[in-house]
Amino acid sequence: MNELRVAVIGHRFMGRAHASAWRQVGHFFELPRRPVLQVICGRDPAATRAAAETLGFLEAAASWQEVVRRPDIDLVDICTPVALHHPIAIAAAAAGKAVFCEKPLARDATEAAEMLAAVRRAGVPHMLCHNYRRVPAIALARRLIAEGRLGQIHHFRGVYLNDRLVDPQAPRTWRHDRAQAGGGAVTDLGSHMIDLARFLVGEMTEVAADLRTFIAERPLPDGAGIAPVDVDDAATALLRFAGGAMGTLEVSRFGTGHRNYNCFELSGSAGSLAFNLERLNELALFDRADRTLAGFRTLLVTERDHPYLAAWWPPGHTLGWEHTFIHAARDLIHGIATGEPVSPDFEDGLRAQRVIDAIQRAALSRRWETVPET
Amino acid sequence: MNELRVAVIGHRFMGRAHASAWRQVGHFFELPRRPVLQVICGRDPAATRAAAETLGFLEAAASWQEVVRRPDIDLVDICTPVALHHPIAIAAAAAGKAVFCEKPLARDATEAAEMLAAVRRAGVPHMLCHNYRRVPAIALARRLIAEGRLGQIHHFRGVYLNDRLVDPQAPRTWRHDRAQAGGGAVTDLGSHMIDLARFLVGEMTEVAADLRTFIAERPLPDGAGIAPVDVDDAATALLRFAGGAMGTLEVSRFGTGHRNYNCFELSGSAGSLAFNLERLNELALFDRADRTLAGFRTLLVTERDHPYLAAWWPPGHTLGWEHTFIHAARDLIHGIATGEPVSPDFEDGLRAQRVIDAIQRAALSRRWETVPET
Amino acid sequence: MNELRVAVIGHRFMGRAHASAWRQVGHFFELPRRPVLQVICGRDPAATRAAAETLGFLEAAASWQEVVRRPDIDLVDICTPVALHHPIAIAAAAAGKAVFCEKPLARDATEAAEMLAAVRRAGVPHMLCHNYRRVPAIALARRLIAEGRLGQIHHFRGVYLNDRLVDPQAPRTWRHDRAQAGGGAVTDLGSHMIDLARFLVGEMTEVAADLRTFIAERPLPDGAGIAPVDVDDAATALLRFAGGAMGTLEVSRFGTGHRNYNCFELSGSAGSLAFNLERLNELALFDRADRTLAGFRTLLVTERDHPYLAAWWPPGHTLGWEHTFIHAARDLIHGIATGEPVSPDFEDGLRAQRVIDAIQRAALSRRWETVPET
Amino acid sequence: MNELRVAVIGHRFMGRAHASAWRQVGHFFELPRRPVLQVICGRDPAATRAAAETLGFLEAAASWQEVVRRPDIDLVDICTPVALHHPIAIAAAAAGKAVFCEKPLARDATEAAEMLAAVRRAGVPHMLCHNYRRVPAIALARRLIAEGRLGQIHHFRGVYLNDRLVDPQAPRTWRHDRAQAGGGAVTDLGSHMIDLARFLVGEMTEVAADLRTFIAERPLPDGAGIAPVDVDDAATALLRFAGGAMGTLEVSRFGTGHRNYNCFELSGSAGSLAFNLERLNELALFDRADRTLAGFRTLLVTERDHPYLAAWWPPGHTLGWEHTFIHAARDLIHGIATGEPVSPDFEDGLRAQRVIDAIQRAALSRRWETVPET
Repeated sequence: MNELRVAVIGHRFMGRAHASAWRQVGHFFELPRRPVLQVICGRDPAATRAAAETLGFLEAAASWQEVVRRPDIDLVDICTPVALHHPIAIAAAAAGKAVFCEKPLARDATEAAEMLAAVRRAGVPHMLCHNYRRVPAIALARRLIAEGRLGQIHHFRGVYLNDRLVDPQAPRTWRHDRAQAGGGAVTDLGSHMIDLARFLVGEMTEVAADLRTFIAERPLPDGAGIAPVDVDDAATALLRFAGGAMGTLEVSRFGTGHRNYNCFELSGSAGSLAFNLERLNELALFDRADRTLAGFRTLLVTERDHPYLAAWWPPGHTLGWEHTFIHAARDLIHGIATGEPVSPDFEDGLRAQRVIDAIQRAALSRRWETVPET
Repeated sequence: MNELRVAVIGHRFMGRAHASAWRQVGHFFELPRRPVLQVICGRDPAATRAAAETLGFLEAAASWQEVVRRPDIDLVDICTPVALHHPIAIAAAAAGKAVFCEKPLARDATEAAEMLAAVRRAGVPHMLCHNYRRVPAIALARRLIAEGRLGQIHHFRGVYLNDRLVDPQAPRTWRHDRAQAGGGAVTDLGSHMIDLARFLVGEMTEVAADLRTFIAERPLPDGAGIAPVDVDDAATALLRFAGGAMGTLEVSRFGTGHRNYNCFELSGSAGSLAFNLERLNELALFDRADRTLAGFRTLLVTERDHPYLAAWWPPGHTLGWEHTFIHAARDLIHGIATGEPVSPDFEDGLRAQRVIDAIQRAALSRRWETVPET
Repeated sequence: MNELRVAVIGHRFMGRAHASAWRQVGHFFELPRRPVLQVICGRDPAATRAAAETLGFLEAAASWQEVVRRPDIDLVDICTPVALHHPIAIAAAAAGKAVFCEKPLARDATEAAEMLAAVRRAGVPHMLCHNYRRVPAIALARRLIAEGRLGQIHHFRGVYLNDRLVDPQAPRTWRHDRAQAGGGAVTDLGSHMIDLARFLVGEMTEVAADLRTFIAERPLPDGAGIAPVDVDDAATALLRFAGGAMGTLEVSRFGTGHRNYNCFELSGSAGSLAFNLERLNELALFDRADRTLAGFRTLLVTERDHPYLAAWWPPGHTLGWEHTFIHAARDLIHGIATGEPVSPDFEDGLRAQRVIDAIQRAALSRRWETVPET
Repeated sequence: MNELRVAVIGHRFMGRAHASAWRQVGHFFELPRRPVLQVICGRDPAATRAAAETLGFLEAAASWQEVVRRPDIDLVDICTPVALHHPIAIAAAAAGKAVFCEKPLARDATEAAEMLAAVRRAGVPHMLCHNYRRVPAIALARRLIAEGRLGQIHHFRGVYLNDRLVDPQAPRTWRHDRAQAGGGAVTDLGSHMIDLARFLVGEMTEVAADLRTFIAERPLPDGAGIAPVDVDDAATALLRFAGGAMGTLEVSRFGTGHRNYNCFELSGSAGSLAFNLERLNELALFDRADRTLAGFRTLLVTERDHPYLAAWWPPGHTLGWEHTFIHAARDLIHGIATGEPVSPDFEDGLRAQRVIDAIQRAALSRRWETVPET
């Protein structure tokens, strides 16, 4: 079988998650090409060598610029802080590599548009890693919506909360620095929720929003003093969808009591759906056709005919968070092999970024802002 | 014991609920004055006589104008469509009666201000019936917040959904007529949620909002054809609180799968609270002090030292929706007897109405609107 | 309308609950006879007079022997400790009164059989107050089972827990004295669960069991020292049903964290049902016909076509624990007026008592015991 | 680093799960020896070769007898039907190999005792794969119990349900053949629950029980006709623990609506714990010290200081079912490297088997049976 040699740029949280996916995917799914964990790339040589060993890569490298040009590399998988997505993706595309990029695609829509132009110009496969589209319960939600089981959708309600910043001593990392991250909760958590809203309901046309930074300064992680936080801790927004639905969005790092509460609910003319990532094997479905015996059904999404599940275990044996990356890797490999586009791609990333930018604009302008179509 | 002769104006849904409260309150709570169900008032004489018999009133009457002037009446309890709150309350106050008024107080802040002026001028006791303040779990939530258990509140998230209008054949009643109701979901459900937000978090200063009427015409209940709906089916809003919290609000009659889902969550620096009216005996409390053994605790709010519970049954024996009116009646009777103000009163109603009006303005202006202080 | 003059014997917990039912039932349900709270009876004259006033009775009395013979009394409602059920019921029946008796019917099957013989001999209406049959969700469960929605029932799992005795200082009351109560958790909580098992699944034929008294002595309530506990704190049992189902039963006053956790689940060839009294407005239904979209549906049992609900509030407005007594009163009044038997009756009480007795025998014999049919 | 060459016997469900664990463990946990997936063994050469490729083994083999004697093999991991556990384990021990055996250890206590004798005689490391001890939430439960947070345990309630056999057309596999499986639900599901009961509460001393086969014949999987089922479909039992707790057990393959519902609750003098495998990242804890603010807390067991979690992802990122095998592999490798015993071991398996045997005896004798100590 043809190999697919992968270079992962970044070896922290996301690098580890992606590495696990590349290692595992071929042991559960039939693949047209076999992924090879060729090289992992990071700034600190010792740490990168250790990561290569721990995570199962053949090589460690320090220069992403060199890595993306290596002729033996087929796919560049970008797991760096957000600010690096743009240069790496453009360089990788220019070198003719397939590009897999962690979310959010970029710091803003301008960067995102340039990245999309680059992959299009180069004609390379591109995929944005919004892994939650591949939670089986969410993929099932999409299938049920496509089948018309919700009818006309009236409401979307998306809430994504963690509570990492409630403690004033929680350190300021790159995630709280606009230059590196592009934004705060609105980009980090908001990009997930906006991608899901697009995936399930469709495009948003207008937004009103509020952003807040509750704690303006935080200690640096290395004990080197205090630094300002110039991104939002939390964002709320009202959404209007092209299809007629109205929506609300709340993302926050001050959601006390919630660790990874990515929770949404859709109400339609025929039914409703609800999901919570902390119970990612479950989907709640309400079907109006059940009439006076109707109620939200808690589906345990582990059946063979639920999305991705045939590859795993018998019904009732749950998956975890990291499996979503395996599903993404599976679909990306198929896309690369077949030449079929895989979604979400950089265009999806650009469209999501336009919503994020509109939210940020609306928070400043104090009025509804239009999400540009182009 | 001194009697308190009550006239209830209106004998439908709310009239029945209030009547039950007046009948039951003295059998569970020690009262300074004994309520007498003196007269119930309605437009249709036969229906009103039947209601008087069923609900336990001594008399039926057709003219609220006459009833509110009767010297033997101590308290006028207004359970009519919203448009009548204003004339009845003002007339009752002018006649020196204590006034108990169903929510929302009025169709708009102008009416509400006139009603407040009237009761103040007359010096009569006044109370607005926001019965959910007296759900024991919500009263407990308020107590916990007052004790500082949540610390600084960062987020309020209020969602109140039912699905009565998802069916396009659901008839157009007075609730869908602006002239009678003042608004749609935003006044009916929104007034509840705004009162709770004020009760638990404090005053709101600014709002952004969206209103929607999904179905513009509905059949009249009597089969007499079709009539336009000129109120909102659903409303969403962003909220800013004087105390620094940010909030979201969603109220809808298109919340498929939800029947009376009055649900809120508060996130603070020290803890969080969540409530859902469909499980009204429960309160979820998260206490950061529990550290790595922290989780949302589901309190069954039926303990003797929980609010109002000592009057009822041993722990574990749950209350229902109608008990909230009994608690309101209990507190109103005490207030009348002692001369102490009872909240929420007409000033609370006016303040809530200003938020509702601001939401309606913001939905039109497409920008944030300030909630006026006076 | 013809009156139904009620004498309630006992004015503590159950007396209060029954009194509330007699007061309220006519205001919600159409009745063939109007209940009159004629007299309440208790040993302590002052306390009974106070109860009469609080609870709304016309008279207080001290001698149940006199009350049950009064020609103006139509119905004797027995709310005393268990040991008094037998003499009062027999005397009331002999006096020609309809008899309504709190559960469990008696201290043992011998007493229960004598009581059944007495009401049969006298030809008087008789009803046992197992109020939980009239929780709307449970009445709905019964309806669904009768419609065949579960198919053949394989499993019954009944757990009824409270935690009143976990505290070693919880006082010893009549409920912990075999002479007054007939047994401990097994009679108090077990009688509820056994009645529900019979109601939903049918007769039990054999049992194996275990009883336990975790704390053998407790303080007397009046501070007058320590007294032995001669009843069980907890009971577990295996059940066999005539219809082929197997069952488990656990009842305990040591169920830490549970206040009134009357919880059961039924598994059948076509579906399953689950209920928990602490969420008494809900019923969980699993329907195998939903196939790969199957899941337990949480029904909010507040619809107009759910049992008893048409008399109450619009959908979504929940009932509480005390409403179950109102439903029982409603059905008893209809039964008395029509001459139709009302279940559960004293025969049901006898049959349940035979199961309780068999459990107590099995706990001693350490082997399966047969539940006698006669 | 020293290698640990693993031979896995069996490549179906459990073989796949164990293979995944051997592949992944070294990428997340620091290990004293590096596991090598040396050989997988199965009866069908083509299927075994395919499995070796898919699962990542270096070799495929057909004869377990030869494999267990190979000098290059360090560990024999038994994932076969139950009847083969005994001969393979004994042969592997005789060959001086460490032995890792799927649950249940054997078909009965006689076999189990011989297996224990064999590993002891050979002085080889031995571990029984009861993977659920290594669900982080269950490991945390054990820690909390050991810390005394529940106080004296009064009740254990274990229910393990799936619904694979509700369909009468579900085929008869080796799991429904006593000669291959040793028993039905009682050995398959019951062994899990009994292991957890021992892990959390301690030894059981006496049992009463009921077994049932609801459907006596089933189609063979290959369409070759019908075959009798000679094992139980469901088992219920009462348990007595040496430490004074009483317990109930229910295991069934007829638990309609449940797919892998391994659910237990413990009630103690100071607190309670509840767990459900279908939500394996959660543990419910009730602490009486919380007094009138007490309630079951839903812990999301994903914190760094929860068992095994420091190796995985940031808080809030959930694990799945297969992770439990990774944790078992991690602990077994440490045990082999250090010479420290790892639990559960074959003695645990023997003790669990004695309980299972006692349950089977009790179901026949219709009386309580003692669990032998030796």
